[in-house]
Amino acid sequence: MQAKRFSVKSDVQVQKIKWICYHPVETNPGKNIMSSQKDFEHLFDLSNTICSFSSIAQLLSWDQETYMPKGGGEARSHQLAALASHIHKEKTSQKFKNALAKLISLKTGKVKAQKLSHAQKLALREWRKDFIKDTKIPNSFVKNFSKLTSQATMVWIDAKKNNSFKDFEPYLEKIFEMSRERAKILGYKDHPYDALLNDFEPGMTSAKISPIFSKLKKRLVALLHKVQDKKQIDNDFLKRPFSKEKQIEFGNVILNGLKVEKEHARLDESAHPFTISLHPTDTRFTTWILEFGVMSNILSILHEAGHAFYAMGLPVEYWGTPLCEATSLGIHESQSRWWETIIGRSMDFWHHFYPLLQKTYPKEFKDVSLKRFYKAINVVEPSFIRVESDEMTYCLHIILRFEMEKELLKGTFKVKDIPEAWNEKMKDLFGITPPDDSLGCLQDIHWAAGLVGYFPTYALGNLYAAQFFQVFEKEHPHWAKRVQKGDLPFIRDWLKEHIHSKGRMFSAEELCKNITKKALSEDAYINYLTEKYSEIYDF
Amino acid sequence: MQAKRFSVKSDVQVQKIKWICYHPVETNPGKNIMSSQKDFEHLFDLSNTICSFSSIAQLLSWDQETYMPKGGGEARSHQLAALASHIHKEKTSQKFKNALAKLISLKTGKVKAQKLSHAQKLALREWRKDFIKDTKIPNSFVKNFSKLTSQATMVWIDAKKNNSFKDFEPYLEKIFEMSRERAKILGYKDHPYDALLNDFEPGMTSAKISPIFSKLKKRLVALLHKVQDKKQIDNDFLKRPFSKEKQIEFGNVILNGLKVEKEHARLDESAHPFTISLHPTDTRFTTWILEFGVMSNILSILHEAGHAFYAMGLPVEYWGTPLCEATSLGIHESQSRWWETIIGRSMDFWHHFYPLLQKTYPKEFKDVSLKRFYKAINVVEPSFIRVESDEMTYCLHIILRFEMEKELLKGTFKVKDIPEAWNEKMKDLFGITPPDDSLGCLQDIHWAAGLVGYFPTYALGNLYAAQFFQVFEKEHPHWAKRVQKGDLPFIRDWLKEHIHSKGRMFSAEELCKNITKKALSEDAYINYLTEKYSEIYDF
Repeated sequence: MQAKRFSVKSDVQVQKIKWICYHPVETNPGKNIMSSQKDFEHLFDLSNTICSFSSIAQLLSWDQETYMPKGGGEARSHQLAALASHIHKEKTSQKFKNALAKLISLKTGKVKAQKLSHAQKLALREWRKDFIKDTKIPNSFVKNFSKLTSQATMVWIDAKKNNSFKDFEPYLEKIFEMSRERAKILGYKDHPYDALLNDFEPGMTSAKISPIFSKLKKRLVALLHKVQDKKQIDNDFLKRPFSKEKQIEFGNVILNGLKVEKEHARLDESAHPFTISLHPTDTRFTTWILEFGVMSNILSILHEAGHAFYAMGLPVEYWGTPLCEATSLGIHESQSRWWETIIGRSMDFWHHFYPLLQKTYPKEFKDVSLKRFYKAINVVEPSFIRVESDEMTYCLHIILRFEMEKELLKGTFKVKDIPEAWNEKMKDLFGITPPDDSLGCLQDIHWAAGLVGYFPTYALGNLYAAQFFQVFEKEHPHWAKRVQKGDLPFIRDWLKEHIHSKGRMFSAEELCKNITKKALSEDAYINYLTEKYSEIYDF
Repeated sequence: MQAKRFSVKSDVQVQKIKWICYHPVETNPGKNIMSSQKDFEHLFDLSNTICSFSSIAQLLSWDQETYMPKGGGEARSHQLAALASHIHKEKTSQKFKNALAKLISLKTGKVKAQKLSHAQKLALREWRKDFIKDTKIPNSFVKNFSKLTSQATMVWIDAKKNNSFKDFEPYLEKIFEMSRERAKILGYKDHPYDALLNDFEPGMTSAKISPIFSKLKKRLVALLHKVQDKKQIDNDFLKRPFSKEKQIEFGNVILNGLKVEKEHARLDESAHPFTISLHPTDTRFTTWILEFGVMSNILSILHEAGHAFYAMGLPVEYWGTPLCEATSLGIHESQSRWWETIIGRSMDFWHHFYPLLQKTYPKEFKDVSLKRFYKAINVVEPSFIRVESDEMTYCLHIILRFEMEKELLKGTFKVKDIPEAWNEKMKDLFGITPPDDSLGCLQDIHWAAGLVGYFPTYALGNLYAAQFFQVFEKEHPHWAKRVQKGDLPFIRDWLKEHIHSKGRMFSAEELCKNITKKALSEDAYINYLTEKYSEIYDF
C-alpha cells in the first residue's frame, strides 16, 4: 500500500484524542472572568500550535542525526528553514502580539486580565519575556549571522584540520563583532556578556558568575595540585577494545536499571550523543558506541538520560505554554551531570552495576576489582580537550573560555591574540600546553557556530547539581544503600518533584534558593570533589 | 550537550546549500518575459515551501510507524493536525490563488503568461487542477468526514473482533452518504464514482474501468477454473518458522541485489509495510518480519522497493511543483507489483537468488529444488483476504469491491445488504464463502477510513505493469538471461526513463499510450498469467 493511506490514517487519529487543556481554576466566573479565560484560551491556542511546530523541528533534527539517509540533507535543510521561518513568523505575529497584549502589558509586565490562576499569570510573564526577545533582533540580522556562522563552520573545519588559526581568524573576528552588536540590540546593564548569557541561562549575569568562578578556579587548581602530587592511577584496562554488541547489551542493562519508560523515550546511536524532546511523552536520547570507548558509551547514556528525565518530567499539564519548558541550560546540565558524575561515577552505583558489567565482559574485567575499576573511571588527568576531561578539571576548561569571551566582547582583548593567551591560560590552570591550535583554541565548534555566552552553563550545571545533592542527601540519608542495591527511581522522583515539574515557573536562581535555601556557590561542588578525591588519591 | 545546539546547527546548514532552482529556458528575455518568469518564480516559491511542509508530514507519519515511542501518539496527532491545517491554509490561500491566477486562467485553464517553457506550462496546468480540487470541499465537510471516519475506525476494530456487521452498519451508511455528497461537491459527468476515483487515479472513470474489469473478471474466473482442475501444489515447507535474524540478513541480500542507494533510501520494520518519500533524495520503505512469513518479508521488500524506486526516480529538477509527483496510485501500484510479482515471483529472479536463500537457510531448503520452490511461491489458492491472495485471484477481490462501491454510491444497493451480497459474490468468483463477516466484508480498514474509490488502483496497477512489461521485453529481449545472473538495475533504469522521470507530466492514461501505443486493457495481464500458470499447473 502506498503512502497516501498514511495521511488518511493520521487525519483519522486527530479527532479521537482529547488533548490536555488548560484548566482555569476560577469557581465563580462572572462576565469579565469568562472573557479573561476566553482571551487566555485564545492565546493558549496560538502558543500551543507554535509548540507543536517546534516539536516537529525537534523531530527533524533527531531524524537528521540518527536515521536520515545522508543524501536527504539538502532537502532537510530546506524543511528546517521553512519550519524555522514559519515558527518565527507566528511567534512575532501581530495576531500573537494582540492576544498577549490583551492580557498583560508588554511595556510594564503588569497582568491586565482579572482572576487568572497563579500558573496562568506565570505563563503570561514568560510569554511576554519570549515575545520581547523574539521581536528585538531584526530578521536581517538573524539571516546575516546565520550566513556568517555557516561559512565560519566550514572554514573552522578546515582550519582545525590544517592547524591554521589564521584562516579562521577573520571569521571569528566578525562573529565577535556581530555578537557585540547582538548584545547591544538585546540590551544589558553591566556587561555585553549578560545579554548573550541570557539566551541560555535567563537571569544570570557575568557579575554573579565572576566571583563564583574566580573562587572555583583557585580551589580547583589547589585540589588539582594535591592530586598531581600523588601516584597516578592505572586505567589502561579501560583503553582496550570492547565489542560493540556487548556495549549495546550493557547499555540496555543501564536503561533497565534507570527504569526509562519505553513508552515515552528511546535511545539510539548517533555521531555525538544528544537529547531531544518533542513533548514530555516523547523524548529521544542518543549515545555513541566506539570500540575503545566502553565508559564513554555508559557515561553518555547516563548523561543524556539526565537530560531526558528533565524533559520527561516537565509539567505536561502546562504543555503549550512556556511553563512546560526547561528553565535554563545550566539546570538542564545539572540533571545530566547528576546522573553521569555524582551517581554514575560513584562507588555505590558500581557496587550494583560492576558485577553486571563483569558478566557482560567476563574476560576484560576478570582481574579487575571493583575498587580498581572505581578508581580507574575517576582518574584525574589534565587534558587539552574539555569533552574528554574529568570532574576536577572540567570546570577549568569552562572558566578559561568564560574569561576570554568576556574580554573579547568588551573589546579589551583581540581575536588575533587568542592562540597565545589560550596556551598561557592552559599552562596556568592545567600545567600543560597544547602542541597546536587544533588541540587548543580550535578544539570545538561552539565559536564557529556563534555560540558565545554558552559555556558557563556547562560549569553552572556541576555547581547546581552538587548543591542540590546536599539537600537530596539530607532528605534521603540512606540513599547510598539503596543505590548499592540498584534502586534508582527514587532519585529521579526527587528530581522530578523539586526540579523537573517546576518547568519555567522559577528561574534557575529562584529554583536554587527554593531547594537549597542558599544562593549558588562553589562550596558544595568543592566539598563533593574534596571528599571523593581525597579518598581516591589518598590526600 | 543539550538539544539547543542542534537547532543552531540546523540553522547553520540552511545557508550553505544551493537549492535546486527552476530554470527558465528563455534565451531572449524581454520585459514581459522577465515579468512572467518573475511571477512564475513567486508561485514556485510558495509551492516549494508547501512541498517542504508536506515532506515534513511524511516524516512524521514514517516516524509514527517505525520509531516513535507509543506514548508519543497523542502529541503526534496534534503535530499532524497543526501541519495539515497549515498546509491546507497555504494551498488554498488568497496569496496562492493570486499568484496562480496571474499565470493561468482558473476558469478556462488557458495559460496567460508569455514565453514560459513547456514544463512550466504543464506545472501550471497541474497546479490549477490541484487548487480547484483543494478549494472545492468546504473545511466543515473535511472536519466532519474526518470525525466520522475516526469514530468509524474505532467501531470497525471492535465490529471485526466481535464479527458484528450490525455495529458497523450505521457508520458505513453515513460514510457512503457523505461520499455521495462529496462526489456531488466535486462534480462528475456520468457516475458519482468518478469524482472519488479522481483523487487516486486522475482522469480515470468508471465508464473506462467497467468494460475492462468485466472482461478481466470473466477471463480470470476461466483461468482459475483451469487451475482448480489441476493437482494442487505443495507449499507447506514455506509455512515453517524462519528465524528473524536470517530474514533480516536475506532482506539485505535483496537490497544489495536491487542496488538500493543507501544515500537516498532506507528500509525499516513496521507493523504493515509501506513506503513514504520526503523527497527524491530521501525515501523510506518498510517491511514486516513474521516468524512464519519468510516470503511475506521478501515480497514486501520487493513490493515497497517498487514504490520507493518510483519516488526516487521522479524528476527532481521539478521538485516544488506538481511535476515532481506520482501521476496516479495505479501507476504507483504498477511499480510495486512489477517488482513483487513479474520480477519477484519469476523463475529468472530466483535462478539467481534461490541459491543465496538456500545459503541463508541451509536446513530449511535443503531438500527443496528451485523448481519446487518456484511453484510453491506461485500457488493459486482462492482466499478470503485480498492482501494474502495470489496473482490470479488478486484482481477478483478488487472487482468485487468495485462493483459493490459503484452501486452503493449510486444508491441502487443498500449498506445493510452488504454481508449477504459479499458472500454471494465470493461464492460466484472464488467458489468459497467466508465463514463470518470478519473474514468477509469487515476484512480491511479502507471503508472505515473513508477510502471509497481507492480499490481499482490495486487492480489497475497489475494491468499497467503487464502492459508496460510487454514493451520492456521487446526492448530488452535478453532481460531474462541478465536477471538470471542477478543483474537488476537495467530494469529500474528502463522504468525510470519511461515512467518515474515523467512525474505528473502525463496522466496515467497518456503514459500508458505513450509507452505501449495502446489504451489500457486486460490483455497483457491475462496473457502473462496464462503463459506463466499454464506452465506451472500444466494446462
